[in-house]
Amino acid sequence: MSADHREQQPGQQGSRIDPHVDRYALRAQGMVASEVRALFAVASRPEIVSLAGGMPNVAALPLEQIGDLVKDVVSEEGPAALQYGSAQGDPVLREQLCEYMTLEGIDAAPDDVIVTVGSQQALDLITRVFVDPGDVVLTEAPTYVTAINTFAAFQADIRHVSMDEGGVDAGELDEALTRAAREGKPVKFFYTIPNFQNPGGITMTAERRAEVMQVCERHDVLVVEDNPYGLLRYDGQAQPTLYSQGRGNVIYLGSLSKTLSPGLRIGWALAPSAVRAKLVLAAESAMLSHSTFNQLVVRRYLDTFPWREQIKTFNTMYGERRDAMLSSLSALMPRGCTWTEPEGGFFVWATLPEGIDAKAMLPRAVTERVAYVPGTGFYADGRGRASMRLSFCYPTPEQIREGVRRLVGAIEGELDLRDTFGSTLGPSAEGSQAPAADLP
Amino acid sequence: MSADHREQQPGQQGSRIDPHVDRYALRAQGMVASEVRALFAVASRPEIVSLAGGMPNVAALPLEQIGDLVKDVVSEEGPAALQYGSAQGDPVLREQLCEYMTLEGIDAAPDDVIVTVGSQQALDLITRVFVDPGDVVLTEAPTYVTAINTFAAFQADIRHVSMDEGGVDAGELDEALTRAAREGKPVKFFYTIPNFQNPGGITMTAERRAEVMQVCERHDVLVVEDNPYGLLRYDGQAQPTLYSQGRGNVIYLGSLSKTLSPGLRIGWALAPSAVRAKLVLAAESAMLSHSTFNQLVVRRYLDTFPWREQIKTFNTMYGERRDAMLSSLSALMPRGCTWTEPEGGFFVWATLPEGIDAKAMLPRAVTERVAYVPGTGFYADGRGRASMRLSFCYPTPEQIREGVRRLVGAIEGELDLRDTFGSTLGPSAEGSQAPAADLP
Repeated sequence: MSADHREQQPGQQGSRIDPHVDRYALRAQGMVASEVRALFAVASRPEIVSLAGGMPNVAALPLEQIGDLVKDVVSEEGPAALQYGSAQGDPVLREQLCEYMTLEGIDAAPDDVIVTVGSQQALDLITRVFVDPGDVVLTEAPTYVTAINTFAAFQADIRHVSMDEGGVDAGELDEALTRAAREGKPVKFFYTIPNFQNPGGITMTAERRAEVMQVCERHDVLVVEDNPYGLLRYDGQAQPTLYSQGRGNVIYLGSLSKTLSPGLRIGWALAPSAVRAKLVLAAESAMLSHSTFNQLVVRRYLDTFPWREQIKTFNTMYGERRDAMLSSLSALMPRGCTWTEPEGGFFVWATLPEGIDAKAMLPRAVTERVAYVPGTGFYADGRGRASMRLSFCYPTPEQIREGVRRLVGAIEGELDLRDTFGSTLGPSAEGSQAPAADLP
Repeated sequence: MSADHREQQPGQQGSRIDPHVDRYALRAQGMVASEVRALFAVASRPEIVSLAGGMPNVAALPLEQIGDLVKDVVSEEGPAALQYGSAQGDPVLREQLCEYMTLEGIDAAPDDVIVTVGSQQALDLITRVFVDPGDVVLTEAPTYVTAINTFAAFQADIRHVSMDEGGVDAGELDEALTRAAREGKPVKFFYTIPNFQNPGGITMTAERRAEVMQVCERHDVLVVEDNPYGLLRYDGQAQPTLYSQGRGNVIYLGSLSKTLSPGLRIGWALAPSAVRAKLVLAAESAMLSHSTFNQLVVRRYLDTFPWREQIKTFNTMYGERRDAMLSSLSALMPRGCTWTEPEGGFFVWATLPEGIDAKAMLPRAVTERVAYVPGTGFYADGRGRASMRLSFCYPTPEQIREGVRRLVGAIEGELDLRDTFGSTLGPSAEGSQAPAADLP
């Protein structure tokens, strides 16, 4: 490959400035920078109320006590904590995670668990183990943005299934599976976030869960159940996990990022034994082993800390924030706006009146000193232009109320524009576009 | 896919016991469990002197002081340390890593650095970004076992280039590149460990470095320079890095796993800016972000600790262990055995007299209460049967001397066997076999 050869490809994006452009793997073409990344940098300015990121409020943790705990790990278990570990993860921690999962009604064996760098890495390992280029992965629409990125990075054919307020549409899921079978395209798994979905804020009803499991079993398709928010419920009744209804066809993903700390990067997958073995091999080539230090810190935390009480503390705090957001939206949002009413988790999904484009509105919102994530980022196919994800996890109730006031100011400005000039939706409302990466 | 369909494939490995066997991606076929894993479990028994693993002796760190340090990170910087971070890694840490690299003679910009989960993850991200199935990756022979695993997991065509005591054979490298070009096969990079190579213990001479860089530049091929041991030199003169001789065609991998702690999982890649950007996108889909906690711990360590003195302490300790191993080998090894004499790092590569198979000998060695890694694990093509890697990093000098005594006992037993019955080499000395995974 000569410099001349490269210059003969002026149409290829970046060919003039990246001398390595001809060297990348095909899958690297699916790795694209977020179009709203720049706006996120702006959104982190102190004068902005950010309803964008999904960062938990870790400042609510008892930091002095956790400081003592991490010190004890080093001084009492340092030679182990600072050493390499196994790719599957610490055995004692895996036992504790099984105990943790009993709170979700899951009866699991430690040997079926692999500890991962957040549940994001579990998603990555699963995709790596199952997905050849062109294989179908089904997801809810909308869905978690970095799941889309991961599936795209392994060249999956990502297909969405609609949701209503009871969760994913089981009939449409059935149709999608039937269509893929007719096309002869293997469906590697259906990815779902049944509780307080990111970004929809929707929880799948018990009835819907049973229907979804029947459909997936009939089509012999794996289910990947991502449940980072399950224990953060502020009202209503917990629903049974898909895992506990499955017959060896569900891979369950858990995480301590929302109930303890994302900075420790402790997530896990619970998988049928043969699949778990493959995930461990993939993890070994991905990073040898997770941080033993972090695993022993979390082991000690789960062993010595009143962590169930800590989750209750989080639930009280996040419940107040959710209430602040829902009451502000009810009080202030212009006619024609709709939004979901989550029973837990971190997110509300809001949809704007006809003719308003949430992404086009974002610069105006930032001018009003509020930020959110435009809906298009949560689809692989360019849908979601009228919608946005609003997070209530990080700002205080007062900040949330002020943020919603500012957001409403931006929406009213767009409504004026629409009423004067027509729709603010741009011309390219259809077709694929890069998902917007953001914090989870 | 029905159960009947699965039962119609009895020849496929595992089809009877793994109901998911038809679902895996093609790349999962390259993910295989180590054949010597079971022996490693045996090797970790206390009565065994293990010359197998590459674990640094982290017990030599001042654990009380590090305990205080991690406590301060949580109590003073907890809200940041326990939160999500960026996929590229903490900016201050990246500045410090650039300062660290000046000890290797590298002049780097923090923006060109990405912090990774050990340098293993850097290798994984590089492979993910560059390697399509069937692309050629060139490595030294022998080479780091988990690098082989990672390249295999992305279905690379792994080709070896021989080494002599001065490092990789530049002429053979040239031939391999010419042959691949003739075949029309893209060579994505040449992977090398120039200092105290794992497992060879060999350091590339200054002259050889210049030749290698000329060859790679002439063929316009990227170099991946893996340098985890560079600062662990016990005698001789440091050689210039390939990175510092490159012209934007070298990706450099660094690690604190050997000079501080592998349990913190802090490695990094230093890459040309466009490549670095791709690696960050790949890291984001792989795990969102590395542990902020660990990064702030290391930041404070590099900021407040006499870490250069700590490296000197390690060098004194590891130098004594290397001396213990080399003097024991000289005193005791039977005629016909050869071994390398590393100026640093963790490993000696030993080759047995003609007709002795190191893998076949391992059960006898374990019976003698000593363990090592058979040479075959360090090749993608089944070579290395007469060789073994001996680590001197973890056991004490006394344990090393005792370990070599036991090893010599095992070799002498095999020599008796050979002299009675002929070669101990099995019939299948050629052809590919699964690499043996082990600790780095």
